[in-house]
Amino acid sequence: MSGSILDYNTVELDKNDNSVIIIDQTLLPGKTELIRLRTAQEIWDAIYLLKVRGAPAIGVTAAFGMYVISVSLFEEIKKDIASGKLFGEDAPERFKKEFEEKKEFINSSRPTAVNLSWALKRMDEALKAALPDDGTGKDGGVSSGAALLEKAVAALYDEAAAIQNEDIETCRKLGEYGLSLIKKGDGILTHCNAGQLATSRYGTATSPIYLGYEKGYDLKVYADETRPLLQGARLTAYELQSAGVDVTLICDNMAYSVMKKGLINAVFVGCDRVAANGDVANKIGTGGVATIAKRFNIPFYVCAPTSTIDLNTPCGDDIKIEQRPADEVTEMWYERRMAPDGVKVYNPAFDVTDNEYISAIITEYGIAYPPYDVSLKNILEIKKKG
Amino acid sequence: MSGSILDYNTVELDKNDNSVIIIDQTLLPGKTELIRLRTAQEIWDAIYLLKVRGAPAIGVTAAFGMYVISVSLFEEIKKDIASGKLFGEDAPERFKKEFEEKKEFINSSRPTAVNLSWALKRMDEALKAALPDDGTGKDGGVSSGAALLEKAVAALYDEAAAIQNEDIETCRKLGEYGLSLIKKGDGILTHCNAGQLATSRYGTATSPIYLGYEKGYDLKVYADETRPLLQGARLTAYELQSAGVDVTLICDNMAYSVMKKGLINAVFVGCDRVAANGDVANKIGTGGVATIAKRFNIPFYVCAPTSTIDLNTPCGDDIKIEQRPADEVTEMWYERRMAPDGVKVYNPAFDVTDNEYISAIITEYGIAYPPYDVSLKNILEIKKKG
Repeated sequence: MSGSILDYNTVELDKNDNSVIIIDQTLLPGKTELIRLRTAQEIWDAIYLLKVRGAPAIGVTAAFGMYVISVSLFEEIKKDIASGKLFGEDAPERFKKEFEEKKEFINSSRPTAVNLSWALKRMDEALKAALPDDGTGKDGGVSSGAALLEKAVAALYDEAAAIQNEDIETCRKLGEYGLSLIKKGDGILTHCNAGQLATSRYGTATSPIYLGYEKGYDLKVYADETRPLLQGARLTAYELQSAGVDVTLICDNMAYSVMKKGLINAVFVGCDRVAANGDVANKIGTGGVATIAKRFNIPFYVCAPTSTIDLNTPCGDDIKIEQRPADEVTEMWYERRMAPDGVKVYNPAFDVTDNEYISAIITEYGIAYPPYDVSLKNILEIKKKG
Repeated sequence: MSGSILDYNTVELDKNDNSVIIIDQTLLPGKTELIRLRTAQEIWDAIYLLKVRGAPAIGVTAAFGMYVISVSLFEEIKKDIASGKLFGEDAPERFKKEFEEKKEFINSSRPTAVNLSWALKRMDEALKAALPDDGTGKDGGVSSGAALLEKAVAALYDEAAAIQNEDIETCRKLGEYGLSLIKKGDGILTHCNAGQLATSRYGTATSPIYLGYEKGYDLKVYADETRPLLQGARLTAYELQSAGVDVTLICDNMAYSVMKKGLINAVFVGCDRVAANGDVANKIGTGGVATIAKRFNIPFYVCAPTSTIDLNTPCGDDIKIEQRPADEVTEMWYERRMAPDGVKVYNPAFDVTDNEYISAIITEYGIAYPPYDVSLKNILEIKKKG
């Protein structure tokens, strides 16, 4: 594979080949390899082994995956009908049963990933709408059973494609709002990877950067490497460089230095959850970046699809922070252990950035400014009205 | 080697064996190995290959090194006098000539290390005082030449021991002042390694911690790993753990999290240079820690032996910051490259912490508080008066 990452979707369906194409992210940044997923096992492996990661990208992979599985299933069923192994009128029941099994299997690949179960639920509902449980399809015989399945498979395709298109549209709109906040030649700092590789296209925090790139904004981007797992070095620096964006990699503790030097005009970060008061949970280190940005009067923008806004969480203190294994800090990625045996390690995956340190929260339905308890509700109202 | 690092000096002279004993720091934290340096080449290698590092520790190694070399040189000369190869009256000249050669050789091991040339200069002056160029020693014949050399070698020992003792005393006094600023049970954050391993004993930023440990303060220390070279993980976490101090390793970007959680009562860092206005240059990341500490009203203390105070540098902007190679960020310590080929990297070794973010500067002659342009001068006056 060569060329810009912007020439590809992170997750793509090949309808002719009946496969899902993804970039194997475990090989990045050293090797850019597209792989094809055809079976439930391959899809499960890809998600479980983090070949595809990032909540939106996982959701799209699961949705297209269920479509690909459904096509194969339909082919088998048609063969069995043709050979007399299966009565046509029993076809929808068998399809639904096997679809349900595969769906549960895929769902087990990363149990805590919200987008995974959310996308699978949408696919399931699409199937139920096409093949209702009221027995439709039982009385039509051979041709009618197959015809119903054909319709169901088509509905599954439409739903998967809709999930992908909505994701792309969300990121693009969010990016346009973000781009309205910066100007040509600006220096931008970002933390972790809220990039195209985590979504179908554009990413969230990277979306203003990509849209700016397409419009000749000549942005200078600084990417925090983001210890301990180095998503900034491995993924963000990779994808921006691949797209042709002017990107410079720094260690997390150098953010102060580039801000003090006047190299940064705005910070864009993604987020895992936005509380009702605008406090934001995001990758560990985000709150420190926001604190330093405020000192230097640099606007700090959180790029948050409305799906991440959680009005049921009153504030950041209510967000439980995941503690991760010590070896991510002491030895992961290293040739040899870089800290003494048995040393205590504190390794939180996320931190909370208090709302007063956030200049604006950018969504696909507009930009929320303080006070966030009001503005976030307004954004969700706009969304509801469609 | 086993037991606590506090049982050893980082650099030690074994007079009976005529060797300098150091901990090979290139093997830390995996292996604690004491090695003996006997020849000029071994001393040069140890400094050049960073087996011993940290300005004060390098200075002491060079001083003891010159003593060990001088003893060997004296032995050779005595043999040559005994065998008639050398006239006793020529002994001092030969000694001075070879001493000078070895001194220049050792000095070439790390040309930019100020303490190295400073310690070698002190040894040179001690020798010149013992063997003045006015020809003393030329007229006394065989026994007189050897006797003069014996006196000179003794003077070199005294000077090297003085350099070490002054270093230990500086660190201990600084530590006592630092300890007066904290209380039992406090949480302490430190950045990089300004530890015993960089000095003869106690370290600078770690000195209050070690003295507190000896007095049962039960401090909880958090050590920033300090990317890119991980001195915090490799050295600080190692030496504090070895000493029995309660230490927890964190990634640099987690400092915000532990401060926000209320786990930190004070920050102690070392420094490379203090400007006349109190701005401080120290390891990259220090300024960010200070900024975040101020937000949470956590005192931020700089531990600065008076030798690092430079009144000729008006402020931090006048300090030139070294830029280091990109591969320290992109591949050093890694099994495989962790950033895309050819990605731009910004890798400053140090940053400047502005004086308004520094609660106090702790020296071996007392604690300087803002305004630093006054207090630092006062400290140096106290030093001058002795």
